[in-house]
Amino acid sequence: MNSKKYNMWLQYQPITDSKTKEQYQHLFDHVCVLSEGLQVQAAKDEVHTAVPQMLDMDLTITEDINNSKIVIGNKSDLAQLLDDNQQSKLADISDEGFLIVSNEKQLIIAGNSDVAVLYGVHHLLRRMQLHEDITRLSVVEQPKNQFRMLNQWDNFDGSIERGYSGRSIFYQYNQFVEDKTRIKDYARFLSSVGINAISINNVNVWEEETFFITKKYLPEIQAIAGIFRAYGITLYLSINFASPITIGDLHTADPFEEDVKNWWKEKAKEIYDYIPDFGGFVVKADSENRPGPFTYDRDHADGSNMLAEALEPFQGKVIWRCFVYNHLQDWRDRSTDRARAAYDHFKPLDGRFHENVILQVKNGPMDFQVREPVSPLMGAMPHTNQMIEFQVAQEYTGQQIDLCYLIPQWKEVLAFDTYLKGEGTSIEEIVAGNIHHYKYSGIAAVSNIGDDGNWTGNTLAQANLYGYGRLIWNPSLSSEQIAQEWIEQTFGMDEKVLNTIEDMLLNAWEIYENYTAPLGVGWMVTPGVHYGPNIDGYEYAKWGTYHFADRDGIGVDRTKETGTGYIEQYQEPHQTIYNDLKQVPDELLLFFHHVPYKYTLKSGKTVIQHIYDTHFKGFEQVEWLIDQWNGLSKHVDSDRFENVKARLERQLENAKEWRDQINTYFYRKSGISDQHERTIY
Amino acid sequence: MNSKKYNMWLQYQPITDSKTKEQYQHLFDHVCVLSEGLQVQAAKDEVHTAVPQMLDMDLTITEDINNSKIVIGNKSDLAQLLDDNQQSKLADISDEGFLIVSNEKQLIIAGNSDVAVLYGVHHLLRRMQLHEDITRLSVVEQPKNQFRMLNQWDNFDGSIERGYSGRSIFYQYNQFVEDKTRIKDYARFLSSVGINAISINNVNVWEEETFFITKKYLPEIQAIAGIFRAYGITLYLSINFASPITIGDLHTADPFEEDVKNWWKEKAKEIYDYIPDFGGFVVKADSENRPGPFTYDRDHADGSNMLAEALEPFQGKVIWRCFVYNHLQDWRDRSTDRARAAYDHFKPLDGRFHENVILQVKNGPMDFQVREPVSPLMGAMPHTNQMIEFQVAQEYTGQQIDLCYLIPQWKEVLAFDTYLKGEGTSIEEIVAGNIHHYKYSGIAAVSNIGDDGNWTGNTLAQANLYGYGRLIWNPSLSSEQIAQEWIEQTFGMDEKVLNTIEDMLLNAWEIYENYTAPLGVGWMVTPGVHYGPNIDGYEYAKWGTYHFADRDGIGVDRTKETGTGYIEQYQEPHQTIYNDLKQVPDELLLFFHHVPYKYTLKSGKTVIQHIYDTHFKGFEQVEWLIDQWNGLSKHVDSDRFENVKARLERQLENAKEWRDQINTYFYRKSGISDQHERTIY
Repeated sequence: MNSKKYNMWLQYQPITDSKTKEQYQHLFDHVCVLSEGLQVQAAKDEVHTAVPQMLDMDLTITEDINNSKIVIGNKSDLAQLLDDNQQSKLADISDEGFLIVSNEKQLIIAGNSDVAVLYGVHHLLRRMQLHEDITRLSVVEQPKNQFRMLNQWDNFDGSIERGYSGRSIFYQYNQFVEDKTRIKDYARFLSSVGINAISINNVNVWEEETFFITKKYLPEIQAIAGIFRAYGITLYLSINFASPITIGDLHTADPFEEDVKNWWKEKAKEIYDYIPDFGGFVVKADSENRPGPFTYDRDHADGSNMLAEALEPFQGKVIWRCFVYNHLQDWRDRSTDRARAAYDHFKPLDGRFHENVILQVKNGPMDFQVREPVSPLMGAMPHTNQMIEFQVAQEYTGQQIDLCYLIPQWKEVLAFDTYLKGEGTSIEEIVAGNIHHYKYSGIAAVSNIGDDGNWTGNTLAQANLYGYGRLIWNPSLSSEQIAQEWIEQTFGMDEKVLNTIEDMLLNAWEIYENYTAPLGVGWMVTPGVHYGPNIDGYEYAKWGTYHFADRDGIGVDRTKETGTGYIEQYQEPHQTIYNDLKQVPDELLLFFHHVPYKYTLKSGKTVIQHIYDTHFKGFEQVEWLIDQWNGLSKHVDSDRFENVKARLERQLENAKEWRDQINTYFYRKSGISDQHERTIY
Repeated sequence: MNSKKYNMWLQYQPITDSKTKEQYQHLFDHVCVLSEGLQVQAAKDEVHTAVPQMLDMDLTITEDINNSKIVIGNKSDLAQLLDDNQQSKLADISDEGFLIVSNEKQLIIAGNSDVAVLYGVHHLLRRMQLHEDITRLSVVEQPKNQFRMLNQWDNFDGSIERGYSGRSIFYQYNQFVEDKTRIKDYARFLSSVGINAISINNVNVWEEETFFITKKYLPEIQAIAGIFRAYGITLYLSINFASPITIGDLHTADPFEEDVKNWWKEKAKEIYDYIPDFGGFVVKADSENRPGPFTYDRDHADGSNMLAEALEPFQGKVIWRCFVYNHLQDWRDRSTDRARAAYDHFKPLDGRFHENVILQVKNGPMDFQVREPVSPLMGAMPHTNQMIEFQVAQEYTGQQIDLCYLIPQWKEVLAFDTYLKGEGTSIEEIVAGNIHHYKYSGIAAVSNIGDDGNWTGNTLAQANLYGYGRLIWNPSLSSEQIAQEWIEQTFGMDEKVLNTIEDMLLNAWEIYENYTAPLGVGWMVTPGVHYGPNIDGYEYAKWGTYHFADRDGIGVDRTKETGTGYIEQYQEPHQTIYNDLKQVPDELLLFFHHVPYKYTLKSGKTVIQHIYDTHFKGFEQVEWLIDQWNGLSKHVDSDRFENVKARLERQLENAKEWRDQINTYFYRKSGISDQHERTIY
């Protein structure tokens, strides 16, 4: 399993530039690592792995502070080396923060905690993989977000819901995998980009997974928690709200029943006996047929608070998902609007949640579409902890067949100014806990990995996992910076490779959007599978996912006056902007309005001509992606080259289907010809 | 398993009418059954089962010809009882024919063979269940068709492809079922309506099923063959054309390779060692990804002849399916026409098939749609044995949720005059072998049974299985006659029950057609599942199944001048009729022509108004079905009443979705309002 594709961005390739190599060799001549903390041990291991490979030298790590050129440790052990200024810098940052400073004599990595040391070491190794000068460092770093989490949607049978990279690395055939090497390596990769929390089973908790919180499986979970703990990652489990019935012998899961409350309290005690630092529960309740408090006429506050009380004595948290909507909607009924649902359900409950409950809100009001507005629920509950949820797994964005670098999308979300407390109330500051001073907040995302040799199906999809970690550690990093970092660590310092892949990544989202559903209307995908075009696939379905295209026009009217009123969930000026055809951004036009095909966009094109143009263009852009990639045939090892090449070819097929089906569908419906008389069927 | 729902049409309910009962009791006072043939034994068993139940009397069966009031036996044993006229009548009919005659002294059932005796007994028992006078009988019966076959699409794992009645009665979890009671009862039911051949595994032969023709499974198959043999039903197996590779250690399945030919010859010998009267192979080759001769650049004659040679020494047959078409079609390409495929593939091969090969041709050119024209291939190969294939399983006709009595559809097919040898060349006569004098011919159909308590999911779907057998034995029976027979045997002699169910059955096909795809265009179903509406579900697919609806019109142009030319596969006057918009029957209009929505049908309505009207009407008709059925609540046992009631309620839901989706789709596309201003969304 030690291959380039497997090693992702922790390649630690030999440094060939002699000047850089000499600089690094000189420093690593004597290395001191202090403290015996678990995560410091992991840091030491990482140095042991990385340095000999990169620098072609034997490495000796000692505890000799004074004679070492690099000194690494928890600040409590390094006090003698740090001056007042440095001490004070560390005091100003969080437990996860670290300092890297060079003086004439030494390079010091000091962490505010053991895991901070690990982060500091990864910081240094990253810079070395990027061939940077590390002789004059003065770094003070801390993560912007408190929770930096991944959700695995892995099922016990080894399948992964919305998994596009093979089978689970945790489970196979309703057993825990015996060889846990990949879990450990996954933890390494995650800690290298600062992930500090993980839930390891699907939010849809099926029959057998319900028993994860019982003696039957807790010893195995304990072992996995131990692996993640060594990398500073806290383990969570998704639970089944109906557990008291399924596991216990209760006849109800009503959160107001004393028996139920006590059952959960006992259950929490039992779990913490196995895993003293267990993170808590992730809960999908009353959503898409999952059980929840609604069964007992209780609300989401009632349900989550009951669990919160059980976990509270152990500092456990309840992460309660807000993906709640009517999934048995009647398509005939245009008054129901799925986009409204999360806000309508949760906003009225603000202030009623315990302080160890965190609401997890998807980034958009629908479901991880290629283009959505930002969820108006995020930040709208000042008295309730919230996290935002992204999806690294490319469910609706190409399934790791098609290229789609998602960092620009997430950056748009984070940059969105909600105006909830006037100008400057960005999502970025809200999730960082700087607006409402949440006790807990941050960012979670659905992971994109599986047991494929390269972890992510498409090797270039590794960039989304890397970028997710980096971005939520430091949201001020640009998409370009993150791409560059990832490319150089993953593929080396070849400038042609850097420029080519960066160009591909940065254009990928726009390309994908071009050939799929137009102007923010979303869906139009094959039901269930969510890959490939099916324009009416969700049009007469119960999922609340419609485009309302007829022979005259298309789009969902969510205005105040004639639509569903969803727009009113936003603050001004968004209400006005989204409501006004003249102001609404083109890319969201059909999300908010139903317009005629001949309606003219700000771009000067009609809607129908825009549809034709983007779909012809999107296909051509995939041809361009292929050309770009083919130019790297001699610059990238054949294993990874062929993997990406094969995926791009499938992407071209997909883009062709999208182009022709979308164009044909709208031509047949509108009867309006393409201005450029290109082939439409 | 002895319940009314389980017993289907062999209820043998006590006869309460005293006059009838006395008549029957008198006759059954002394019964003689001669001959020890297997199927005569089955006939005797059936009398033993039926008579005590119906007549509330102890039954003694002897071999005393002279003093019995009923004498049953093979004609060779009854020679002394039959006069010259009767002997000559028997000599004029086939081996499966029988005679029932009454004289002052006796009622005689004489069969030309052992199985004919069984058919004769079932004939008599049927008349008794119908309370007919059996004192003055003069019956001479023989089946019109030589092959009267059922195809089970059962998989070894216990699933049934297109099965809507539970799991397989043959297999579960890749094992043969231990308790073979249901198989035996199935054989009883089939023999009671004259079925004489069955293939017991899916035509899509998967990995493990490929090994059915090996020592691993032949002992089990042998046992099942024995059960069917006792009822005069010959057993066939579907085989995998690539068996020499999968089972043998050959590298090829090329029919021209000596190794391959010899492998099949040895294989045939092995099979016949186990089952001396084995029927032969059913083969789906080069169809929907199944292997076949195309792989080796051979054609269907080459492939089937090779198998035929192997089976020939044992009188085995090869039943070769003609369901061959390009299932990877590009929807953009309007020149390819799936409807043409079977004819284009097979017609040029006429005369090249061995005489123990029979081509099995689906009744329509597409795939068991609610409405299709008759396949032009049927009868078009005068020098090649052919059978027609129906589908008792309601794949596209409501899946045994929705009611659809299929006898009227099959009767239309059989009545179709192909004009292949001038007027009067009906499908009925072709499949009976009366036109081209085939060595083998007849009818096959996909079965609709599973291990549901009532065999067929919807109890009323039993009528299709019953009717299939009766119709192909005697195609001159009317849909009404068959319905009446089935209802009275199944539900008893209650006139209200008879009239109500008969009315429901006879209208069911029209009702189903009304609310589904209009005017013969077909498809518009949920892909894969084939239940419920999805108007564009197959519109951009690779399956060759399109309606080409745009804002102006709809339909597939299969004319000579501007279309695919499919029409030219028919004889005159069909070519002219189908090609001419003025002559083509309304119900097939969109199968043959692309017309504007405002095109006026012979009915005087426009196409669009016809769509609206039939879809509103279809839904109302299902409400009528429910009303009808509810009227029987006190006339039908609750078990069967509730079963049908629940299905009808699901049918109503289905009809509602069809009505609203079809109407909405075409309204949005055409922009033309309903004349009656009913609700369209």
